[in-house]
Amino acid sequence: MDREKLLEEISVETPSKIILIVLDGLGGLPYKDGKTELECAKTPNLNALAKNSALGLTYPILQGITPGSGPAHLALFGYDPLKYTIGRGILENLGLGVEIERGDLAIRGNFCTLKDEVVVDRRAGRIPTDKCVELCRKLNENTGKIDGVDVLFTPGMEHRFALRLRGEGLSDKIKETDPQKVGERPVIPEALEKDGERTSQTLKKIMEMARDTLKDEERANFILLRGYSLHSPIPSMSKLFKLKPAAVATYPMYKGLAKLVGMDVLDVKGTEISDEVETLKQNYKHYDFFYFHVKKTDSYGEDGNFDKKVSIIEEFDRALPEILSLCFDVVVVTSDHSTPCLLKGHSWHPNPFLIYSKYVIADEQTEFSEKSCAKGILGHFYAKDAMSLMLASALKLKKFGA
Amino acid sequence: MDREKLLEEISVETPSKIILIVLDGLGGLPYKDGKTELECAKTPNLNALAKNSALGLTYPILQGITPGSGPAHLALFGYDPLKYTIGRGILENLGLGVEIERGDLAIRGNFCTLKDEVVVDRRAGRIPTDKCVELCRKLNENTGKIDGVDVLFTPGMEHRFALRLRGEGLSDKIKETDPQKVGERPVIPEALEKDGERTSQTLKKIMEMARDTLKDEERANFILLRGYSLHSPIPSMSKLFKLKPAAVATYPMYKGLAKLVGMDVLDVKGTEISDEVETLKQNYKHYDFFYFHVKKTDSYGEDGNFDKKVSIIEEFDRALPEILSLCFDVVVVTSDHSTPCLLKGHSWHPNPFLIYSKYVIADEQTEFSEKSCAKGILGHFYAKDAMSLMLASALKLKKFGA
Repeated sequence: MDREKLLEEISVETPSKIILIVLDGLGGLPYKDGKTELECAKTPNLNALAKNSALGLTYPILQGITPGSGPAHLALFGYDPLKYTIGRGILENLGLGVEIERGDLAIRGNFCTLKDEVVVDRRAGRIPTDKCVELCRKLNENTGKIDGVDVLFTPGMEHRFALRLRGEGLSDKIKETDPQKVGERPVIPEALEKDGERTSQTLKKIMEMARDTLKDEERANFILLRGYSLHSPIPSMSKLFKLKPAAVATYPMYKGLAKLVGMDVLDVKGTEISDEVETLKQNYKHYDFFYFHVKKTDSYGEDGNFDKKVSIIEEFDRALPEILSLCFDVVVVTSDHSTPCLLKGHSWHPNPFLIYSKYVIADEQTEFSEKSCAKGILGHFYAKDAMSLMLASALKLKKFGA
Repeated sequence: MDREKLLEEISVETPSKIILIVLDGLGGLPYKDGKTELECAKTPNLNALAKNSALGLTYPILQGITPGSGPAHLALFGYDPLKYTIGRGILENLGLGVEIERGDLAIRGNFCTLKDEVVVDRRAGRIPTDKCVELCRKLNENTGKIDGVDVLFTPGMEHRFALRLRGEGLSDKIKETDPQKVGERPVIPEALEKDGERTSQTLKKIMEMARDTLKDEERANFILLRGYSLHSPIPSMSKLFKLKPAAVATYPMYKGLAKLVGMDVLDVKGTEISDEVETLKQNYKHYDFFYFHVKKTDSYGEDGNFDKKVSIIEEFDRALPEILSLCFDVVVVTSDHSTPCLLKGHSWHPNPFLIYSKYVIADEQTEFSEKSCAKGILGHFYAKDAMSLMLASALKLKKFGA
């Protein structure tokens, strides 16, 4: 019996409530006076919570593996991130706020410059984002619906866009059109398998229309497509874990990820942590699982901005008492992955993890940090196993076997 | 190569001796002055042993999963509890002391009350156990052997019984007859697969005979059957690990589980820990692996009787020196699962685990508790991996690869 089937079999609906707080990219490395971001931040409320909680460290995927946001979040939501892989095209669309449904074909795209039929600039001279917005609008006007397939271009930064095809019988078994180097012709999107022939025809038509629409552009006169991902749905959290889950997040990518696993995505009026807390309070009654996402810890980590990352952690710490005052049965504070300022990017270091419930042996550590978590009673474990621990601690799992 | 095949390949018979001491349901949660059962118990002998042992915590199944005794014990015996699942009917029979062999069909049953052909009470008004004993005896007299199949009813508590069918070609692919609600007719035990047709016929005859035998009963005038389990044998410990294993246990369920993996079950004259120690001493010479089971830690945990659970731990502690005086090469003290008095039931919390041998790095912890084990040199690991650690520590495993 596999883990997923086991959880589906033993999970039960109960009134108890869980909150999973994800401080994105929280974990760090020694940077300032040999201290990490979390060690430098003044976090009296997190420390007080830690004293009554069980601590540990989680591997997002496997020892040494640095995850993107997609797999790292899937793991936290209780899914094996090596079983459910989310295609690049899907993440690109989700990140731009595009809804993805079962059977959608999601694609990453670039504007490029063609000359004498060969690609001379794969990024079309990094056109300004405004220009990208204008060209996507034109492409949407001129393509619209082809062969019964809805076509949606969504502008990203500079030369980047996301493309979503929605229709019956789409396939992702198609050649990518990006030749990956200059001086070559764009690849024709031929089908790689018989199933892909209809989709191949549709993509060829889209490329023709794009060529026609963009023919007068100096730089962005063609498009290149890659990262085809056909969305095969993930079993929902309500099916697997009997939860009624909701997401409190402000960035499109995370809202999109939450939708993929069947969460309701709640409206947040603003982008501050306090706005998210307000949303949480208003919706507390209606759900039994909340995913609460704080983005800026990661953003400042990526920037290598140590002081700002510290200040966001402190801002969250000030908001924590209001969250705790709602009286969740289970509170988890953790991260999807580490983003040390030292690396200016995601890293493989395990995540600090704290779980509070009536049914933990509290570690009585006086602070919440990478090091105190390493000494915690939970030890090191895989992020994908956090869900069963949360469910158990909320008494939402029956016994396995007799 | 899978783990099981690996162990079978590298295990060797040696004169060294292992004892696996299972204090059932040992682990707890803070309860009295913030302390667990194990923290409150005065255990000078366990603490002294802990000082010279390596400590750790084991997950019975997976993080957050609360196991029944069956899967929890299989894991301790070295078997993947998600690979070898023991059906409910088998556990019910084992728990009542019924022997189960390869090919037996084991079933759980209830007496019920039928009126106008529909079930009006699924539990026959919870008839007294004495009545259950009497009715099972009658059923055994009247059924006996049907179609060459031996039929054995064994009374449980109140309205419950276990049924074992022994014969050629039995199947468990049969509809359960319990409709699960009142006001409905008992389900006819039709075959769910072609293989099940002969067994279906036999069960139909058993039900007819039961109806006839019970027709004058006021309440218990029919039977309902569920939890069909066909026993497919588990490779024995002697095959996989080259051990000559014996069980010292007083409760039928645990004796039964030990038999399932090929242990000899030793006679214990009485139900006290001291009786078990006596059995151990008498049989020390004849085996190289002993499973030593103490049940009452779990029973008092289930009752929520903190003081009694503490006192059983202390009783075991007093018996420990006599066990150690036998000079086992490897001594493990652990549990199958936790049974915190706070929860009055099994829980998902990992088990304290202690291993003593000449070949461990001792933790030099001054006590044996959940927290000291959390800090132990063994860290957190899966209970199913305890067997390879025991075998290795007894120098019973050859090198893998060259």
